[in-house]
Amino acid sequence: MGSDKEKKFVEEITPMDEDFAQWYTDIVKKAELADYSSVKGFMIVRPYGYAIWENIQKDLDRRFKETGHENVYMPLLIPESLLQKEQEHVEGFAPEVAWVTHGGSEKLTERLCVRPTSETIFCEHFAKIVQSYKDLPKLYNQWCSVVRWEKTTRPFLRTAEFLWQEGHTIHATAEEAEEETIRMLNVYADHCEEVLAIPVIKGQKTDKEKFAGAKATYTIESLMHDGKALQSGTSHNFGDNFAKAFDIKYLDKEGKLQYVHETSWGFTTRMIGALIMVHGDDSGLVLPPKVAPIQVIVIPIAHHKEGVLEKSYEIKDRIAKVARVKIDDSDKMPGWKFNEYEMKGVPLRVEIGPKDIENNQVVLVRRDNREKITVKMDELENRIVEILEDIQKSLYNKAKAHRDARTHVATNMEEFKDIVENKTGFVKAMWCGDRECEDKVKEMTGATARCMPFEQEHVGDKCVCCGKEAKKLVYWGRAY
Amino acid sequence: MGSDKEKKFVEEITPMDEDFAQWYTDIVKKAELADYSSVKGFMIVRPYGYAIWENIQKDLDRRFKETGHENVYMPLLIPESLLQKEQEHVEGFAPEVAWVTHGGSEKLTERLCVRPTSETIFCEHFAKIVQSYKDLPKLYNQWCSVVRWEKTTRPFLRTAEFLWQEGHTIHATAEEAEEETIRMLNVYADHCEEVLAIPVIKGQKTDKEKFAGAKATYTIESLMHDGKALQSGTSHNFGDNFAKAFDIKYLDKEGKLQYVHETSWGFTTRMIGALIMVHGDDSGLVLPPKVAPIQVIVIPIAHHKEGVLEKSYEIKDRIAKVARVKIDDSDKMPGWKFNEYEMKGVPLRVEIGPKDIENNQVVLVRRDNREKITVKMDELENRIVEILEDIQKSLYNKAKAHRDARTHVATNMEEFKDIVENKTGFVKAMWCGDRECEDKVKEMTGATARCMPFEQEHVGDKCVCCGKEAKKLVYWGRAY
Repeated sequence: MGSDKEKKFVEEITPMDEDFAQWYTDIVKKAELADYSSVKGFMIVRPYGYAIWENIQKDLDRRFKETGHENVYMPLLIPESLLQKEQEHVEGFAPEVAWVTHGGSEKLTERLCVRPTSETIFCEHFAKIVQSYKDLPKLYNQWCSVVRWEKTTRPFLRTAEFLWQEGHTIHATAEEAEEETIRMLNVYADHCEEVLAIPVIKGQKTDKEKFAGAKATYTIESLMHDGKALQSGTSHNFGDNFAKAFDIKYLDKEGKLQYVHETSWGFTTRMIGALIMVHGDDSGLVLPPKVAPIQVIVIPIAHHKEGVLEKSYEIKDRIAKVARVKIDDSDKMPGWKFNEYEMKGVPLRVEIGPKDIENNQVVLVRRDNREKITVKMDELENRIVEILEDIQKSLYNKAKAHRDARTHVATNMEEFKDIVENKTGFVKAMWCGDRECEDKVKEMTGATARCMPFEQEHVGDKCVCCGKEAKKLVYWGRAY
Repeated sequence: MGSDKEKKFVEEITPMDEDFAQWYTDIVKKAELADYSSVKGFMIVRPYGYAIWENIQKDLDRRFKETGHENVYMPLLIPESLLQKEQEHVEGFAPEVAWVTHGGSEKLTERLCVRPTSETIFCEHFAKIVQSYKDLPKLYNQWCSVVRWEKTTRPFLRTAEFLWQEGHTIHATAEEAEEETIRMLNVYADHCEEVLAIPVIKGQKTDKEKFAGAKATYTIESLMHDGKALQSGTSHNFGDNFAKAFDIKYLDKEGKLQYVHETSWGFTTRMIGALIMVHGDDSGLVLPPKVAPIQVIVIPIAHHKEGVLEKSYEIKDRIAKVARVKIDDSDKMPGWKFNEYEMKGVPLRVEIGPKDIENNQVVLVRRDNREKITVKMDELENRIVEILEDIQKSLYNKAKAHRDARTHVATNMEEFKDIVENKTGFVKAMWCGDRECEDKVKEMTGATARCMPFEQEHVGDKCVCCGKEAKKLVYWGRAY
């Protein structure tokens, strides 16, 4: 008994280079992040996965509140007629929503969809509560789940239901709405880089790729270990599109009726997938300390020897003052435990055995680079804080180096194809701005326009596809 | 402009004694706690209402984690066949669930219900992940919303969708499951009494009133200002009912297959309704400091006079170190502001004007009893902490005195009816244990068995209804 449970931690997971998709799935399962449910495409977020999400929530929620936002909760179900009020929006979402048709044993007079996103229901509410410029801005956010009827799904990356936050704000002027849209994109970018240790490219989506109903969609894009891109957070400026569809008006200072300007922005559990694919290795997950549910795991060596367990607990209590720490004093062999917490991506392991006690020291082992560090007992807390900070920084630098090494310039389609197919990663290439070329690039290479980066560079004069005059530098890539 | 917004705070709300239901609705609306949506029975939780819920969540979540529980997230949709696996459970819930029948444009081969509660889907997962006694217990909790197709709804108290947490745990033995069920009931009771300042009666539900599929349901019951009872939190022991229906077995230490023993427990946003109905008065909401989003509101008097605003901000910054504080430096008249924050139930108001500055003092006004307290500037922080603690205690004591004064003993049905119809409140009366008497009491008085209290008293020998030998003391009452 129990041996089954222990055994799984020594079963090798599929090596990343052999089958990246299987490697990913193995980690999701063996690090106990998520599981499948009996409804196709719906995921169970297990305690360890959810604890990562709670750390993401805590950090983002703090940033939202510091920028003046308030949390609310809007109904789960949206009447079909409400969803249909904004034309582009309904066209974008109607094909992929779940429809409620019956309440108890009664057939409903109007179908209700399970929210795929909540713009429409926020708009209806805004129209009711806003009269004057004094009521503006409204800066709202909601933590919830949404449902989109996806055909092919993968845990965290694309599921029929996922957890997210959706910010919805309205403003008196177009300028304020634009400022907000950028502000929240920056909040996402800072969270990704400072907490998840994932470097991002900030930019604007092309018209083809923007959100259904938006005037402009901004995005942060990151690069996974296999060279594919991941859209990591988006922020939309709706202008007055929704305000007109939902008749959200306010009296300005001069007593004139004006439409509000609206934004929305979202960040989802898919970033747990990004953590796996940016930092993970063939031993499993590697978590940046700032988002790790357990930052330090204490493992007693020869823990039946006198004094080892007592000392281990003493150390654990000391570490608890500076980090999220756990001790594993179970009867499993230390080797099993090493594997288990490596699989779970715990940033730092503390080993303490009779010899260490004799020498008044402990051995620390970093998850990211396996470095072993012997530390004198009286330097314990300081060294742990230092090393956790260093791991956080190192993971970011490593991810950035990887991304930079996999970002290539293409000046013609031959180079473009070579990058996508052989080198993999981001393709930086000029674009004329025509949808036709964007479609053709996708057809020829499978790559999509990830974004027009805010930091524009000039890598050529001509569109990589048609050769006509170029308007924008675009980051392209195959994407999740 | 803006005058409309200000005006509403002097519009009197309906006095409690004139029309309690309208008084309640007025507070929900004017304190901006919630609003209706276009889907009947679905509620919008506005920022101020949600901030109260966040404080409830923070406190409960801490208590859950301290008792070893982990958060998870389970799918929103449950297949009809899964819901049907436990007979009593499906009979209890099927009549009131919302059914999803289409995904996008496709008709589903099996209907999915929007979770009314998640026992079935937790069970399915437990069956997959538990093999040995070493895997037990599993102590899970989920924060989410659930949908129950209610016909008559009232904000917070009874809505078609509500926010809650649902704990789901499995254990090796019946004893452990029973311990857990009681432990979590106590967690709820402590939260209610210590944070919400609402005294509760702990007890067991009768078979008629217990949860669909449970072996035993425990409850905490509180008393509203109008003398009606509110079920405030429930904790269920399922025994091995669900384990048998879902085949959740484990190998015990002797290598024998055993069924697990299961519990679930829930606490909802209806308690925001309880806060209104227990502590509120004819000026609006009255919030216990521990759950108040704003504990102290600073209101500058004559704030255009030199130095007033500066001093007000200085004071606000000092208070921020000991309490959740806000300043209202808008151009509204102080009187309007007083009304607004009284409506919102902010426990303590700080007034600071030119005279106060001259005298090196501020004036504090308690929301609960209107007491005005002049405080020397250098005692500010200490006094505020003291007074907030006193308000917390006073609100609890007042609510308890009210409940005790409205708890009456009945020894026959005449007394029983008199209490329910004229005195209102809890009726303590003996019961023979027969369902027939329970039904008859409801028919005659509209009162239901709220609980068989853990603290049993002997108030007579005979059943209040049939006169046969009594088995239990029961708290009865009309309830929300």
